[in-house]
Amino acid sequence: MIMPAPFYPGPSKEYENGKPMDRQEFIDALVELGNQRYHSLHPFHKLLHNGKLSFPQVQAWALNRFYYQWSIPRKDLTLMARINDVKLRLEWRSRVIDHEGDIDGSGGIARYLQLCEKLNLDLEYVKSCKGLLPATRFAVDAYVNFVENKSLLEGIASSLTEIYAPAIHQERIAGLSKHYEWADDYALAYFKKRINQARKDVDFGREWVINNAKTRSDQEAVLNAVKFKTEVLWAQLDALYHSYVEPGNIPPGCFIPTDYKLKNVKK
Amino acid sequence: MIMPAPFYPGPSKEYENGKPMDRQEFIDALVELGNQRYHSLHPFHKLLHNGKLSFPQVQAWALNRFYYQWSIPRKDLTLMARINDVKLRLEWRSRVIDHEGDIDGSGGIARYLQLCEKLNLDLEYVKSCKGLLPATRFAVDAYVNFVENKSLLEGIASSLTEIYAPAIHQERIAGLSKHYEWADDYALAYFKKRINQARKDVDFGREWVINNAKTRSDQEAVLNAVKFKTEVLWAQLDALYHSYVEPGNIPPGCFIPTDYKLKNVKK
Repeated sequence: MIMPAPFYPGPSKEYENGKPMDRQEFIDALVELGNQRYHSLHPFHKLLHNGKLSFPQVQAWALNRFYYQWSIPRKDLTLMARINDVKLRLEWRSRVIDHEGDIDGSGGIARYLQLCEKLNLDLEYVKSCKGLLPATRFAVDAYVNFVENKSLLEGIASSLTEIYAPAIHQERIAGLSKHYEWADDYALAYFKKRINQARKDVDFGREWVINNAKTRSDQEAVLNAVKFKTEVLWAQLDALYHSYVEPGNIPPGCFIPTDYKLKNVKK
Repeated sequence: MIMPAPFYPGPSKEYENGKPMDRQEFIDALVELGNQRYHSLHPFHKLLHNGKLSFPQVQAWALNRFYYQWSIPRKDLTLMARINDVKLRLEWRSRVIDHEGDIDGSGGIARYLQLCEKLNLDLEYVKSCKGLLPATRFAVDAYVNFVENKSLLEGIASSLTEIYAPAIHQERIAGLSKHYEWADDYALAYFKKRINQARKDVDFGREWVINNAKTRSDQEAVLNAVKFKTEVLWAQLDALYHSYVEPGNIPPGCFIPTDYKLKNVKK
């Protein structure tokens, strides 16, 4: 799409002549962004990880999150299609393989569907994405659009929320295992496997970004790209909270769990 | 962006050999969609039009809605850039002029800013879009992307929520005038002017769509495009409700009204 300059990150006049941050300052700024904005702080995750969500609420989470999960390789392929450096493309390829696996369906998406299966969701319905909250689709599509339209540096930088991911995956595995009966190894296989994958991806992505963000403007564009990505994640939880927790107004046409108490829903 | 076919409307196998609806059935189906899904039904609008929102909550609404308002001509220009038929392009041009006015800033966007002014919003801040809810941006950008990526029929059809607009504008003008002291002619100029503009646009758009949706598949694609658009509108109100009404969790970095009682906001 035609992205109007003022609304998305890009080199900003403000920093045009600014002194670049050194390596440690830059890393500190990235970490601080996570401390302020990563979706581990979101009330919906607090409820989820502390066993405060009902089974139908967890179903709604898993069903919506599927679209994010499923779109990650689309995002990575969109990015790869814009990379001219073959070595960098090859490096990035492992992310797609991690998610999609081989033709036998052994990748992260298949493992994620194990969670949906344990949650008694109809997998064909999940994969059809018919019950998605529109806000989920808008946020996730915005991410794919971002890597298609922004600079390569910003596109790669937007994946750096992975820096914060291993901690939330560990918190999630511990919390779900403790509080929910269905949360066995089979259900949580995606998150368990993902911890080490994310670590490997982060090491590469972070170093690449640090080495390629030479100016202060570049560095600010990187921080803005990560900020954008935290918004993509946060907005998904806002929508889940609104629709399935409080006030619980499910938008027309979206997933209605069985026996769910309806408020503003026309059947 | 690369739109995967199953997730957005398009000719569907199901209707490939279906009998087309006749004119009245098709219009009835469009009207019924509005009865089920138009954002006039949203709890946030009920609160707004019944005077139940506080001044800061109305500020948040106006500030976020600005991005939608401001993006409509971007959407129309994106669409026009894809139209080969000069007569149709000329017909569509009046929409851009209605919103942007002339160089003197006499269009709908300028009138909309009068509302923001009466609500004591800093107009430069509003126009910077820095305080927007990310969900607003994602939803509105999804609309612009839609008209860029879908068929011309679907792109034009997505504007047909205008069929339902005059009623909500009248309800809004009456409700705001009755319940809010600031809601004078100056503040409501945009909505007052828009009633007749929308009627004119609707007549043209509806006839064009009816005449160009020849098959049942085309007609279903039209209905899906209108459905998509209702989701764009609904999602914006969901996000406002979540952030500024209940539970009132404003996402990091978004507009915080003066003296607003903070919940999950890090300053």
